[in-house]
Amino acid sequence: MASIRVGLLGLGVVGGGTWKVLQKNAEEIARRAGRRIEVAAVAVRDVEKARRLLGDSDVRITTDGLEVARDPNIDIVVELIGGETIAKEWVMEAIRQGKHVVTANKALLACHGNEIFDAASSKGVMVMFEAAVAGGIPIIKAIREGLTANRIDWIAGIINGTTNFILSEMQSRGLPFNTVLAEAQRLGYAEADPTFDIEGVDAAHKLTLLASLAFGIPVQFDKACVEGISKLEAEDIQHAARLGYRIKLLGITRRRDDGIELRVHPTLIPMGCLLANVDGAMNAVLVHGDAVGPTLYYGQGAGEMPTASAVVADLVDVARLESADPEHRVPHLAFQPDAVKDIPILGADDIESSYYLRLRVEDRPGVLSEISRILAESDISIGSMFQEPFQAGEASIIFLLHRAREGAVSGAITRMHKLPFVRSEVTRLRVEDLI
Amino acid sequence: MASIRVGLLGLGVVGGGTWKVLQKNAEEIARRAGRRIEVAAVAVRDVEKARRLLGDSDVRITTDGLEVARDPNIDIVVELIGGETIAKEWVMEAIRQGKHVVTANKALLACHGNEIFDAASSKGVMVMFEAAVAGGIPIIKAIREGLTANRIDWIAGIINGTTNFILSEMQSRGLPFNTVLAEAQRLGYAEADPTFDIEGVDAAHKLTLLASLAFGIPVQFDKACVEGISKLEAEDIQHAARLGYRIKLLGITRRRDDGIELRVHPTLIPMGCLLANVDGAMNAVLVHGDAVGPTLYYGQGAGEMPTASAVVADLVDVARLESADPEHRVPHLAFQPDAVKDIPILGADDIESSYYLRLRVEDRPGVLSEISRILAESDISIGSMFQEPFQAGEASIIFLLHRAREGAVSGAITRMHKLPFVRSEVTRLRVEDLI
Repeated sequence: MASIRVGLLGLGVVGGGTWKVLQKNAEEIARRAGRRIEVAAVAVRDVEKARRLLGDSDVRITTDGLEVARDPNIDIVVELIGGETIAKEWVMEAIRQGKHVVTANKALLACHGNEIFDAASSKGVMVMFEAAVAGGIPIIKAIREGLTANRIDWIAGIINGTTNFILSEMQSRGLPFNTVLAEAQRLGYAEADPTFDIEGVDAAHKLTLLASLAFGIPVQFDKACVEGISKLEAEDIQHAARLGYRIKLLGITRRRDDGIELRVHPTLIPMGCLLANVDGAMNAVLVHGDAVGPTLYYGQGAGEMPTASAVVADLVDVARLESADPEHRVPHLAFQPDAVKDIPILGADDIESSYYLRLRVEDRPGVLSEISRILAESDISIGSMFQEPFQAGEASIIFLLHRAREGAVSGAITRMHKLPFVRSEVTRLRVEDLI
Repeated sequence: MASIRVGLLGLGVVGGGTWKVLQKNAEEIARRAGRRIEVAAVAVRDVEKARRLLGDSDVRITTDGLEVARDPNIDIVVELIGGETIAKEWVMEAIRQGKHVVTANKALLACHGNEIFDAASSKGVMVMFEAAVAGGIPIIKAIREGLTANRIDWIAGIINGTTNFILSEMQSRGLPFNTVLAEAQRLGYAEADPTFDIEGVDAAHKLTLLASLAFGIPVQFDKACVEGISKLEAEDIQHAARLGYRIKLLGITRRRDDGIELRVHPTLIPMGCLLANVDGAMNAVLVHGDAVGPTLYYGQGAGEMPTASAVVADLVDVARLESADPEHRVPHLAFQPDAVKDIPILGADDIESSYYLRLRVEDRPGVLSEISRILAESDISIGSMFQEPFQAGEASIIFLLHRAREGAVSGAITRMHKLPFVRSEVTRLRVEDLI
């Protein structure tokens, strides 16, 4: 059978890894796919650098992605340049030309996925994106194909390696956020501008895709509630540990009767659960289905070779499925396009969770009583609390609150901030038992 | 699009679960598959019982599986009766009739898979078996489709829930094997005749399938090295814990230059690793690929609904792929039939592992020196050891040995058994660091 011919847009970390995996495991891949997967062209910024990587192969090198997208000899265009502007233009052109697309670009799909998948469906081509979520872990495939029997209830995942590395180091070494971030940058785990990672944006891009796959809804990144880890204090990690919890940046999406929760934030989870023991830059996604119960998927969520593993798996899938009737292929968002439903995404106030609150207060009689009264009047029930001295004349009070609406908790916190003896902003973190 | 019509062979735990999932999630499943999946006929032993479960549906009930296998209105035959005789006959007939087959029968496929897959390939039909390994966890899909970019190095899995439940209880409560087995039988976690589970046969069936998918080799259950947990002593679980290990029944398959290891046995693994923290009846499979590194898949490995989740996922896959050219579908054993290679399975003596040895010896001078000499003469290097009193005049000696050929270790143990001061059989367990 003829080779399948690939055009790579971008030859950076993931593009280079993809090239290497396709060379190194060429025989193994062909034994599986039934045909060779051959890189025919690459579009890069730096032609000389590309020439060095590609050696004496006869891959065509260009700086113009549109040329690759329009090359009639190319069957699949692999977009690995990132970003939402040029990447989108080249991907849309590839689709218009009737080519299949493989991409690792979560930002592109989380923000423009509906348009891209629509265009692909009308041209009868596949847009594959296993590499866009959790790197080498085949989580898209698991949800989209492995759990099709289930009504999926919720997903909770560690889907950003940078923040998990930072939190693991803060946890194990008791260091503050800024120190660990600087170290992560030195080690290459965090970028020079780490905003997208540490503020939860990258995780929210990925979660947006997972939610669509799980619930059959359009991608709606703009509706996600997102909170990063840059304000997290070492103190709270220690208090959490004392209470039997670890803090992880989780992406959580949950189906409720009145809508869908879509949220990324630091979360206290019980120490004993597997997710709490996923350390360093590793990723893991816990999926709860009504028939299967909980399932967990763990592995490297980023990096040259793990991400390339996902890109190449998509290439093999396209090679295998190319000849199938388009309407029989796995739908882009797991559900048939005409069966995607616009279920509302719930706003921040409507989230339901348990909560951890920490207050710094003046140490004098009546303090606890007034704070407790506010919680009671907000109909929020206390699971446990402890108080300890903070510094001369001040105390820290920590509450674990039972499940409540976030709007109620925010209202209570606003009232607490008006109390004269509350000495700093109230720290509020969500707590999930993941059961 | 027309419904896809299913015939169920067997309506026991998994068959009943499959029926329930197809009813309960009918709409969700149709939204994904693009068509309804409809049970048209069932073959059961007890017609009355079936009638009660199926209620007032118009599913045809028969006692003759061949009738279902030959029914021209049926597209997919789902074999859930287990065993290797009638199940084989009915499955082969379904294939001859050009029907796709979905099965949860690991024994059937591990022992007769080559013949069954050959027959299916020549008829151009699919035989799907996600439910045969690790219940609801989509591990077949992960290896067969999700990790196709990789040269898979090894797999290590907890793939039998009964034994994992027993070991977890022995570990956490310090109870002996027989006590916990009796309790597991009372709770329904172990069968009245638990041999297949506790002696590792069930795990070896599953491992046989995983090895074929990972390495592109024919199924060769008869070559597996299998040791169960029935002789495991509570004492060794405690010693292992002191050394920083937990004992799990693992199925391990590893590709080496000279062949493939295929083995099931109780294994010491480091406490900190995720597999060591998979407790109760849960399953988990760790897969190591050269590009992706380690990935882990966790979930319920048995039970009515989790297993049904896998059966129904296979049905959706068949519904989606039915129209694809047969030669473009995912191959049964992950590799194209003409690319399956007969790599030799290594015998027990050729296994390479680290080892734990426990000896009961007379407590007198020179004992340790003689034992150590045997190890040295066998070219086996000691990682660590400790000795402690056992009872009056006797001591226990525990060795952790560095990686060695099992033949060398067995030879050394034979020599130890001849020493006059060795008071009982030497306990030998394998140790794997899983890195």
